[in-house]
Formats: sequence, structure tokens, C-alpha cells
Amino acid sequence: MTGNLTLAVDAMGGDAAPAMVIEGVALASAQLSGVEYLLFGNEAEIQPLLDAHPAAKAVSTVRHAEDVVLADDKPAVALRGRRTSSMRLAINSVHEGEAGGIVSAGNTGALMAMAKFVLKTLPGIDRPAIATYFPTQRGESVMLDLGANVDCDANNLVQFAVMGEVFARNVLGLENPSVGILNIGAEDLKGNSAVKEAAAILQEAHLPIKFHGFVEGDDIGAGTVDVIVTDGFTGNVALKTAEGTAKLFSQSLKQALTSSPLAILGALIAKPALNRLKSHLDPRRYNGAMFLGLNGVCIKSHGGTDAFGFAHALQVAHDLVTKSINESIKEDFKQVQADMENHKQAAVGE
Amino acid sequence: MTGNLTLAVDAMGGDAAPAMVIEGVALASAQLSGVEYLLFGNEAEIQPLLDAHPAAKAVSTVRHAEDVVLADDKPAVALRGRRTSSMRLAINSVHEGEAGGIVSAGNTGALMAMAKFVLKTLPGIDRPAIATYFPTQRGESVMLDLGANVDCDANNLVQFAVMGEVFARNVLGLENPSVGILNIGAEDLKGNSAVKEAAAILQEAHLPIKFHGFVEGDDIGAGTVDVIVTDGFTGNVALKTAEGTAKLFSQSLKQALTSSPLAILGALIAKPALNRLKSHLDPRRYNGAMFLGLNGVCIKSHGGTDAFGFAHALQVAHDLVTKSINESIKEDFKQVQADMENHKQAAVGE
Repeated sequence: MTGNLTLAVDAMGGDAAPAMVIEGVALASAQLSGVEYLLFGNEAEIQPLLDAHPAAKAVSTVRHAEDVVLADDKPAVALRGRRTSSMRLAINSVHEGEAGGIVSAGNTGALMAMAKFVLKTLPGIDRPAIATYFPTQRGESVMLDLGANVDCDANNLVQFAVMGEVFARNVLGLENPSVGILNIGAEDLKGNSAVKEAAAILQEAHLPIKFHGFVEGDDIGAGTVDVIVTDGFTGNVALKTAEGTAKLFSQSLKQALTSSPLAILGALIAKPALNRLKSHLDPRRYNGAMFLGLNGVCIKSHGGTDAFGFAHALQVAHDLVTKSINESIKEDFKQVQADMENHKQAAVGE
Repeated sequence: MTGNLTLAVDAMGGDAAPAMVIEGVALASAQLSGVEYLLFGNEAEIQPLLDAHPAAKAVSTVRHAEDVVLADDKPAVALRGRRTSSMRLAINSVHEGEAGGIVSAGNTGALMAMAKFVLKTLPGIDRPAIATYFPTQRGESVMLDLGANVDCDANNLVQFAVMGEVFARNVLGLENPSVGILNIGAEDLKGNSAVKEAAAILQEAHLPIKFHGFVEGDDIGAGTVDVIVTDGFTGNVALKTAEGTAKLFSQSLKQALTSSPLAILGALIAKPALNRLKSHLDPRRYNGAMFLGLNGVCIKSHGGTDAFGFAHALQVAHDLVTKSINESIKEDFKQVQADMENHKQAAVGE
């Protein structure tokens, strides 16, 4: 192994693990040069899979783990009881500096609890958030939080805004990304107290952020802003609603295009175009939710994904590490904390 | 006029009112027999439109209204200051028994504030909710609240569940509709305290409701349950997210099918099937949000809809009135209140 970046992989997480994971590593090895993988899990299960995937074997080292986190383990139970699990040992390896980041398709709550406990949050961040990016009519946007924090106050939302902006700038490569807070109306008087207060801070505190104001649910698909900030309850419902609607639409399209001989013929002729559409909106191309705000890169893959999707999650981890996302968040937060302090003092002085 | 049902119509509400409204009445007159319309608004504007639409004229009576509610009127301001508006007079006509229900495409907040003030809530209902039904992979489901109540406690959610169930049974015609509470996980330990407490009541109070448990955002499009219960903030975001995703998908499909000569040819051949798909998912076919829990039928049409969509909102009002939705809600609430009382006493006795 001669790579310059090492990723830790929970080989036992996910519905089809470890086979899906090893296949994902094999796919990723073709896309990402110079990356090595530390595979944590049951060695007896993993070795034969590596033998079948020489491309993965060439860039991987296996680290045996006795235990696994189960899909229905409660986070607190997993945190206390699964200290020798593949998930926990993979996270530990990031903390110890062996790996630059970790990817798991296992239990989300357990992953967040362990990652918070082992890696800790970055200075200035009270709570980490789950973020993802997704296709819009204009390109790609990022949304956070997607479920780590059911209840959020205004300060949490402001911190999410800063982290999301850093991500959009550094990883999506947008020059001056716009940030919106998800609400049920664009007018200032709508919404709960947390979103109203967060909007006031972002409008008045002169943070280095292009704040658009409030956005609504339909702005997500429209791509009205580059970063959508929301609490974990609303964000989780919105993301899954979008996924469910996309599935409804694609199922209905499939049914329509197989409903008659003429429809089948038309679909056959338009197939290359339909395939491009399918690929553009393919959820696997957006797989890999980021835990932002931790002192280490931690990526959660969908549990039900396949090797293609898992390879994308590895790509996300690679991007976050190579773009030094956490260094950028730390830098920005120094400035934000100074601005917030000035804002508070100005408010007191009024 | 010889109809047996009268609907009050706010002729001045909506982006393209009053022309769109009159055209909508003309369309509805062909679909709904025996319905008469009281059109509230500026007589000088409405009469020429009726002259151009004899089908609407034959079933309509115009009631002049001096004032209109503006799209950006705050609800409280509209309630105090717009007592001679088309919206307010239309609502009054329901209260006075002249009309069986009212339809408006105007300002949602003003409509809810006025309708609550004039019509009052049904016995046992603390807060009315906005509900709509929409297409799913299995058929149609109903969701509430969609924005009337930003913060909801467990009792509000339980009341929404009862009203939604009555609607699904009486208006959608489902025999034993299932009810789910929207949450960020199917497990009991997830979510905020309101959803957890509401689920506990629905599980334990022996209400005459088939309670499924928690559902997630992707269950909306899947049609996992017939009735989805949520607070107004989450429901509004979910509904608009679904709308935005559908728009993203249909735009992308359109782009794909015009991207090459071959794609255009294929789309042409498959056109009948694609048109059926478009019609099935056409948001205008689901236009007409219901304000459930008021002592009178009140329907909110999308402000940006066209005559086809407005006619559907009139259809919804017609269905709610002819199916005596409010009588059914009142009946059911007597039973629910008795069950809840027993449940509370049992809890105390434990």
C-alpha cells in the first residue's frame, strides 16, 4: 500500500454487508487514486471477499473486530456495549490519526453517538449536524440537519448555516453560496421562534454569509439557495419526503412506459435520454451523509445502498478529507464567534 | 336557479381572479349538477365575465363586495379591517346558512382567521387543521395539518387523527382507514414529545381508529397509511417538498425527452401514456385544501391555480357538504371524548 490518504471502513454495516462494502471499495479503488482502506470487521468473512475482488485487496488492510453494532441497537446501548465493534474501532482509528475519515452504512444513531463521544465536536459547535447534497433544478444544494437534533434553538441553526456554507464553498466549489432557513412562508412573521431568531442573527450579525432569508419546501427542488438550514426533525421529514416523491414519480413513469405496446416502443427509442435522466436523479449518486461539526470526517451511507452507492460515500469522505473541511470550519468559526460577540455587545449597547 | 346545494365563492381571491374563478365555476357547472353559486366580489368586474360564460351565469348569483383581502394582508389586520371584503362576506353566508360551504383562492392566513372567527370550531376541537389529499403509489392519502398550527401538542395531533380518519372514511370512501403519525423513525423512542405522547394516546385509549404507528417522510409517497398526522410546520414543509420534487422530476423528464431527435420521437410515440401519467399526478386534480374542525365547510384553493384547479376545489367543497363531514366529525368526537375520559381515569387509577 502506497496511498497518501487512508479511510477507515466499517465493513459490517449495511443490509448487504460485508459483501456490498468490499465491492464498493473495489469500485472506489478505480475512481480514487492514492487511497488506502482500513477494513474493520470479521476477518473470516472479509478475507474471502477480498480474494474475489483483487482491486479491493490491493488497497485494503483488514482489522479484525469481534463485535458488530446491530441495526436496532439503541445509541446509548451501542455506545456502552459495543466497544469492540467494527464501527467503534473504525471511529477510533480516525481519532488516533491512522485514518483521515470513516465511512459506515450501519446504525445512524449509534454512529453519531460513538463519533460524538470519540471524536468530540469542533470548537464553537454545540451539536454536530447531518448534511447531504442532492440534485435541484439549478444544480446541487446541501441541506442540514437531517436528523441528528430533533429540537434546535437559534444558535444551533446559525452554526448549521456556517458549516453548510463552508461545505458548499469548499467541497461543492461554489464561490459565494447562498443560505436559506427552511420555513412555512417567506414572510418574516411566519414560523417558530427558533427560525425567526436564527434569521434575525444571520441578517444582523454581519457574518461572512450570503443569507437569502426564509425558503419553503418547494425551494428545495427548485434550488433557490445553495444551503438549506433546518432542525433535524423537519430536515429528516423533508429529505425522506423528497425521496418518496421521487420514487412515486419514477414508479409511475415506469408503469406508464410499459402500459401499451406503443408506450414500450416510445420508451425504447427514448432510452438513452431516459437513462441520462435516471442517472442524474439516481439517489446512489448522492449517497453519503456527512456528520458536520465533529473533529474528524465521518460519513454515513444508506444502509440499503449497493456497492455503487457505497463507493460514492467513500468518494464523499475522500472529498471532505482532501478539502480539509474541518480546518475551514474551524477557521470560519473564529471569525463568526468574533462577529457574534460584537453583535451581542451592540445589542446590549442599544 | 333550482339547485339543492349552494356554495359561496370568493370571486376576488387568487392570482388570476376574478376571471379564473368565473371560468372555474363554468367548468364545475358541467361536472356538478344541482349546485348554485353565490359569487362575492366586485359586481362591475364579475358581470361581464358571467356574460362571457353563460354556463356559469345560469347557476350563479352575484353579491357585491366593496373590499378585497390582499395577498400580503396579515391575518389579524384582515380580520379587523376587511369586514366588507368578498372573502369575509362569503364566509358570513355560510354562517348564516345561505351557503353550505365556501371556496376561496385568496390569502390563506386571512381565510383561516376569518373562518375561525365567524364559523367557530366544532365541539371537542381545539384548533382546526388544514388537510389535503394527494396521489400515492397505492391510491390516495390525506395529510393534516399543513400549516394552520406551527406548534402542536399531543391533544391537537390526536384531534387531527380523528378528523382525518372521518374524512378518509366519509369522503375518500375507505372502509377502515389507517392512521400514522409523521416522525423521523418508526421506533417508539424517536421524535419529539408531542408525537410520542400522541402515539401513546392513540395506542392506549381504545379510540375507534386503526392506528398504524409512526411513519416517515417516504411513507407519504408510498401510501403506507391513509391518513398522515403531523404538526403544521412539518406538514407544510413536507407537502411543499413533495410538490417541489415532483416539479424537479417533471422538468427533468421534459428536458430529457427534448434533448435529441430520437428522444423527441420516442416521446411522441409514448405520448398517450405520458399524458395519462401527467394527468394522474396533475396537482390541479388535488387542489382544494380543507379547513377541518370548523363549524362550516371552508376550502382553500391554491392562489396560483387555473380554472381547472379551481373547479376541483369547488368539487371538494361539494363533496364535504354532501357527505356531511362535520356531522360525522361531531358524532365521532362524542365517542372519542368518552374514550379519552375513560383513558384518563384508568391512568389515574393505575
